[in-house]
Amino acid sequence: MLSSVIVDGVEPAADDIQLPRVLAALADPHRLAAVRFVARKGESWCAQVIEEAGLPMTKPTFSHHLRILREAGIVTKRIQGTRGYMSLRKADLDRRFPGLIDSIVGADAEPAA
Amino acid sequence: MLSSVIVDGVEPAADDIQLPRVLAALADPHRLAAVRFVARKGESWCAQVIEEAGLPMTKPTFSHHLRILREAGIVTKRIQGTRGYMSLRKADLDRRFPGLIDSIVGADAEPAA
Repeated sequence: MLSSVIVDGVEPAADDIQLPRVLAALADPHRLAAVRFVARKGESWCAQVIEEAGLPMTKPTFSHHLRILREAGIVTKRIQGTRGYMSLRKADLDRRFPGLIDSIVGADAEPAA
Repeated sequence: MLSSVIVDGVEPAADDIQLPRVLAALADPHRLAAVRFVARKGESWCAQVIEEAGLPMTKPTFSHHLRILREAGIVTKRIQGTRGYMSLRKADLDRRFPGLIDSIVGADAEPAA
């Protein structure tokens, strides 16, 4: 089956991930919910994230948020067949900002509304 | 000497501190630098934070940033004489979001420019 990481220059190298940009990307409740979802469930099909994380948005709107998360270095996207999958860049984030993602994912869930 | 916490409704109670708002407030490099400074040095006179944290801004601009940090629940402000002092709400933040502030303060320093 065709499977490939997308190389489009959107996702920064690990050393170029900047803390203010990571925090800004996570400051949106919907993006935060999506990140918490993939942190807990592992790599997920985008439509699955929208549905199971309860995000009240269309696919194009989700794509916009996904791009912001990719640009910040928080998630990576992979295409398999006709589906896009997203996963957390946990190792990169843990190396750059030890404990940050665990503390954010572990914090009390808050409504994404 | 007159010393008092400011009760102006700007600072939320600990239980009302919201993670997305905390992250948004910390997403600005200058606010992040100010928070890191008081996290390391303890309560500080505002003019001292501007100077010693190397923040390229006027006092009124700093006051604007300070208000955003107070509204997010990250810092508290106290007046003593004619001076304003700010300090991190470490205990409140640690209780609400365990490990978050330590991970942010402990991350590699990045330029505030």
